[in-house]
Amino acid sequence: MSMNTFGRVFRFTTWGESHGPALGAVVDGCPPRLALSETGIQPWLDKRRPGTSKFTTQRNEPDQVRILSGVFEGQTTGTPISLMIENTDQRSKDYGEIAKAYRPGHADYAYDAKYGHRDYRGGGRSSARETAARVAAGAVARLVIPEVTITGYVSQIGDDRIDMANFDAAEIGNNPFFCPDAAAAERWAKLVDEVRLAGSSVGAVVECVASGVPAGWGAPLYAKLDADLASAMMGINAVKGVEIGEGFAAATLRGEDNADEMRPGAEGPQFLANHAGGIAGGISTGQPVVCRVAFKPTSSILIERQTINSAGEAVDLRTKGRHDPCVGIRGVPVVEAMMALVLADHKLLHRAQVG
Amino acid sequence: MSMNTFGRVFRFTTWGESHGPALGAVVDGCPPRLALSETGIQPWLDKRRPGTSKFTTQRNEPDQVRILSGVFEGQTTGTPISLMIENTDQRSKDYGEIAKAYRPGHADYAYDAKYGHRDYRGGGRSSARETAARVAAGAVARLVIPEVTITGYVSQIGDDRIDMANFDAAEIGNNPFFCPDAAAAERWAKLVDEVRLAGSSVGAVVECVASGVPAGWGAPLYAKLDADLASAMMGINAVKGVEIGEGFAAATLRGEDNADEMRPGAEGPQFLANHAGGIAGGISTGQPVVCRVAFKPTSSILIERQTINSAGEAVDLRTKGRHDPCVGIRGVPVVEAMMALVLADHKLLHRAQVG
Amino acid sequence: MSMNTFGRVFRFTTWGESHGPALGAVVDGCPPRLALSETGIQPWLDKRRPGTSKFTTQRNEPDQVRILSGVFEGQTTGTPISLMIENTDQRSKDYGEIAKAYRPGHADYAYDAKYGHRDYRGGGRSSARETAARVAAGAVARLVIPEVTITGYVSQIGDDRIDMANFDAAEIGNNPFFCPDAAAAERWAKLVDEVRLAGSSVGAVVECVASGVPAGWGAPLYAKLDADLASAMMGINAVKGVEIGEGFAAATLRGEDNADEMRPGAEGPQFLANHAGGIAGGISTGQPVVCRVAFKPTSSILIERQTINSAGEAVDLRTKGRHDPCVGIRGVPVVEAMMALVLADHKLLHRAQVG
Amino acid sequence: MSMNTFGRVFRFTTWGESHGPALGAVVDGCPPRLALSETGIQPWLDKRRPGTSKFTTQRNEPDQVRILSGVFEGQTTGTPISLMIENTDQRSKDYGEIAKAYRPGHADYAYDAKYGHRDYRGGGRSSARETAARVAAGAVARLVIPEVTITGYVSQIGDDRIDMANFDAAEIGNNPFFCPDAAAAERWAKLVDEVRLAGSSVGAVVECVASGVPAGWGAPLYAKLDADLASAMMGINAVKGVEIGEGFAAATLRGEDNADEMRPGAEGPQFLANHAGGIAGGISTGQPVVCRVAFKPTSSILIERQTINSAGEAVDLRTKGRHDPCVGIRGVPVVEAMMALVLADHKLLHRAQVG
Repeated sequence: MSMNTFGRVFRFTTWGESHGPALGAVVDGCPPRLALSETGIQPWLDKRRPGTSKFTTQRNEPDQVRILSGVFEGQTTGTPISLMIENTDQRSKDYGEIAKAYRPGHADYAYDAKYGHRDYRGGGRSSARETAARVAAGAVARLVIPEVTITGYVSQIGDDRIDMANFDAAEIGNNPFFCPDAAAAERWAKLVDEVRLAGSSVGAVVECVASGVPAGWGAPLYAKLDADLASAMMGINAVKGVEIGEGFAAATLRGEDNADEMRPGAEGPQFLANHAGGIAGGISTGQPVVCRVAFKPTSSILIERQTINSAGEAVDLRTKGRHDPCVGIRGVPVVEAMMALVLADHKLLHRAQVG
Repeated sequence: MSMNTFGRVFRFTTWGESHGPALGAVVDGCPPRLALSETGIQPWLDKRRPGTSKFTTQRNEPDQVRILSGVFEGQTTGTPISLMIENTDQRSKDYGEIAKAYRPGHADYAYDAKYGHRDYRGGGRSSARETAARVAAGAVARLVIPEVTITGYVSQIGDDRIDMANFDAAEIGNNPFFCPDAAAAERWAKLVDEVRLAGSSVGAVVECVASGVPAGWGAPLYAKLDADLASAMMGINAVKGVEIGEGFAAATLRGEDNADEMRPGAEGPQFLANHAGGIAGGISTGQPVVCRVAFKPTSSILIERQTINSAGEAVDLRTKGRHDPCVGIRGVPVVEAMMALVLADHKLLHRAQVG
Repeated sequence: MSMNTFGRVFRFTTWGESHGPALGAVVDGCPPRLALSETGIQPWLDKRRPGTSKFTTQRNEPDQVRILSGVFEGQTTGTPISLMIENTDQRSKDYGEIAKAYRPGHADYAYDAKYGHRDYRGGGRSSARETAARVAAGAVARLVIPEVTITGYVSQIGDDRIDMANFDAAEIGNNPFFCPDAAAAERWAKLVDEVRLAGSSVGAVVECVASGVPAGWGAPLYAKLDADLASAMMGINAVKGVEIGEGFAAATLRGEDNADEMRPGAEGPQFLANHAGGIAGGISTGQPVVCRVAFKPTSSILIERQTINSAGEAVDLRTKGRHDPCVGIRGVPVVEAMMALVLADHKLLHRAQVG
Repeated sequence: MSMNTFGRVFRFTTWGESHGPALGAVVDGCPPRLALSETGIQPWLDKRRPGTSKFTTQRNEPDQVRILSGVFEGQTTGTPISLMIENTDQRSKDYGEIAKAYRPGHADYAYDAKYGHRDYRGGGRSSARETAARVAAGAVARLVIPEVTITGYVSQIGDDRIDMANFDAAEIGNNPFFCPDAAAAERWAKLVDEVRLAGSSVGAVVECVASGVPAGWGAPLYAKLDADLASAMMGINAVKGVEIGEGFAAATLRGEDNADEMRPGAEGPQFLANHAGGIAGGISTGQPVVCRVAFKPTSSILIERQTINSAGEAVDLRTKGRHDPCVGIRGVPVVEAMMALVLADHKLLHRAQVG
């Protein structure tokens, strides 16, 4: 059933709440004899870390990861890798008001309806803080797929999209938005600042491309590579849509325009297009795997909204505290991590069946 | 690992190829004492059946389902329910040419790259014919969730969308497109006929709404209801995108506009909007669950495309045989079935944990 | 959850009841390009088939297996392999009396207590007839592990054990008891005949040895090879005990006597003993894997016993119909099949993690 | 695949090595609103804790458990419960010699053969120290099944069995052997002391009875209650055999003697015997569930044995350090924990399917 576990062969289980003492992941099924230490994981966590610019939440934590098991003398042993990150900047007092009132658009009401008891501090288990555990697990996954390069970036904030003509992968690390279009990054700085000052929030689209994936990964029919990616991405906090390749645009195309024609190449087929986003019939084709993910605007905002409390009474609520004005931005390292986790899993799954 | 199994507690496993003797599903975990017979399953298969209009493939088969186990004296026993559908109109001769050449956009190349051996007849395991097994399993799932009403329809073909002002659920069964907008259905008749006569194909969008789902189904963080729906839908043949609620449109919204405000209601909260599509934090909220699915155009077309064959040589290929000009149309009963299967699974999963 | 599925990477799902139209198995995760046809499976089913001597049930069915999917042009394709066996000699009339009365020692009462509705004909799903599906699946598993030789035999009936000094593997196929000790087989003929004529039944012990298993299969801590074998064997109808290597005798030993000492060998270590039964820490050691399985006497007997019926009333019951006087005998091919299925699964699982 | 996860609906994942900084378990699927704190778990750990008598290893650690997630204001929230126990008395120096030489009968060689890299300190992941995590998880499982009483005890050490005529459950806590027979406990004190002083070790049998289990738990055919118990018990370190009810003795019985006859009772059937050990057809019958588990003698002994080292050279090895002379004794709380974990899982699994 695996409610808090993801993966089929390379699996990880996460635990922890926003304001508990710590959170973590247990990575299971990792091959032995891979070089691993905290210093190999930390950079990915730093990329996701809050408080690095005014465009992300001001919660400020070092997010230092500790490896508690599964590594000996610098190498993985094939046994479970336990990763732990302590929560150090919790400020429970900020969250007093939402102990009883349900933030509209947030998971508060649904958790109460399901469990009847809920750690309301900072959203508890539903907090995006849990994604730190995914990023840590993703760093381990990357070791399993050294042949793959994963590049994630924000392609749209609100309705302002990047211009693909300006695409420069080298730009992604040069701005606080993981934006590959320098001109768009400038515009977004104004946009997100305006949103932030208004106490509002805004949505975004994250794209992620994995190159170097060989043909053959993915196990149809119910462990399709694209289906697993869809699950992985839709499961990230605030995500409401997932596309592979053309995505919804494919609905508007004719068959002859959507065909990825092939010609003989030096090493396997040379594709003349990649409408499929690198996946056909649930199996990788050898082309880059392309995924697009829609993030809704953060639901915790300073603008007052109508809601109810746990007693069923009408209240109006402004969510005080520190929040991301555009949660999609910090979604980039999370999307990358989930891409790595799905690909690592499918590499091993393919190896199991086909050798 | 479950490569051909879907579900967590209510599970089904499918088997079969397009041109083998039969295909089927084994449904496991079904509660006992539900009234079930072939006549309860057949109508859903008939809805998906090909050859019912000129807008679908002319392959003509009765798709008669047989129940081979799990039912005694008209009631489920709690043991596995084996469902079998014989293939009767296979015409292997139609497929001789594609035995060696890879149809662009189809799974042919990927299957060969993965397995090195492939039943090429009619696409083999990658054929949309397998979805008959899902529809049969979905009919069983519906028995588990009598409180839920599932309504699927085509909302867009090519770039022609329905007008929501014309939405009439009663129209859906009145035209060959499962279209709730009578005016759009008329336009589509021309559009799809033109596509068909040109030997081409076109994409579509299917929407599916499940009402009656109580608050509390869905098990965060890695068995979220929306993540499971994303996996279920992205795994359907030809699907390239999935949205829940606002989907990609959520990326363009501000937090205050995307909030689903609440007021006290007679039976739980009254929501003033449903941007979330009935799911928050991976858990149902009690509002209708809304899902949108993008189908690419059928990749088997009569228009010649460049490709290679299994010897790696360049060839040009027209795919003869009988194909759907718009595979999204027959996707409607499949999307509905997957919705039913996911919801049935989550109802039981919720019952396991919360009682 | 997988209630009717067994295995982790190489998995099978069974379905069917004793008196339904058919029963079967779906084998998933099988590697592609293995030569497979019905004629490769049938001999194993024939070995398990009833009615071949007076020492087994007189139910007489050909148990012809059909492959419905997953094989093309004589080779596996990597897609699910559906295996079906029709029930042809059902004689429902024999079972009228037990429709309402619970046979003592049988699963009748437990099934009713659980499901509240039960196919009572021939024991329904709880019938040992289901093991035909396991044997068919096991024949596929054997293809995955050509390096392994599996030898099962009966080592004890009632309290009459074989004399290991008389052990001759070539004898196993020469008598109706799968007995490697010709003298014991003669004694058992008298014993089982006496039991049969008395309308009684008797228990047995089956041993199974797998040689050729390389060191390294088994995934501690919760996919240990011995734990999976224990589950596989205890799950066979009528089994009440499982031992690996010394089994319960290990409880009586001192550490120095139970140690499997090692000396250098030409190809890896040379073990001086095999108390461990080829498994240490849940991982194969390269020595033969040795398993011992206790079967209780068949609970359906002609001798009258006290019981109750579904109305809760006291009744006395003799179970008419055709039954095995010693169900352990036909347990041999089932134990072998489960051994093959577990080993195939662990070979692929090991390949996934370690390559 | 779940290599380090056990369970179907109520699941736990363990991590950690004997000499790493800590070990732990993540419990997933626990129902919400159960009262839980460290003080509810600690007594079970104390029962398993080493160093409490001269009959167990002199490694002395407090084994203090910390709850890191899943509990809020004293109640479970339905989210994963992370349990951590720090290792405080590790003494790596004791284990220098076995870094390269393989202890006969131990998992050392098998781990190296599998993974090619191994934390040899104290047996690393293969150490019985990991069972502390199971005991902690088991304490949570007990909360899920308050209707069940679990009683474990040692019934045999070496070949000295208890006399059932002397059975007194109240005695179990009165001696360091969890022995219900005061006279046997006295004999064992001499026996184990003699073994200990000789630098040897001895095997044992643990029995475990769960009363209060209602009829209906267990999901045939591949999630049978007895099969899951067999897996759970065989997976405990040093276990080589598992019996349910009569176990191997059932092989010697006639059908009429093994039948558990029934008469009408005030609340369901009254059974006149319990040869089945409370399980028929994989489903609980309402009688006490009876399980018997054989532990081999500890393989780490002070008596010199022949072996090889990782270079493949012959060496003779005495295992210095602190070891249990009879590891079966401390197996009692572990067997009880596994019983609780399996029963909790099956209670929820039954609830999922049958309600």
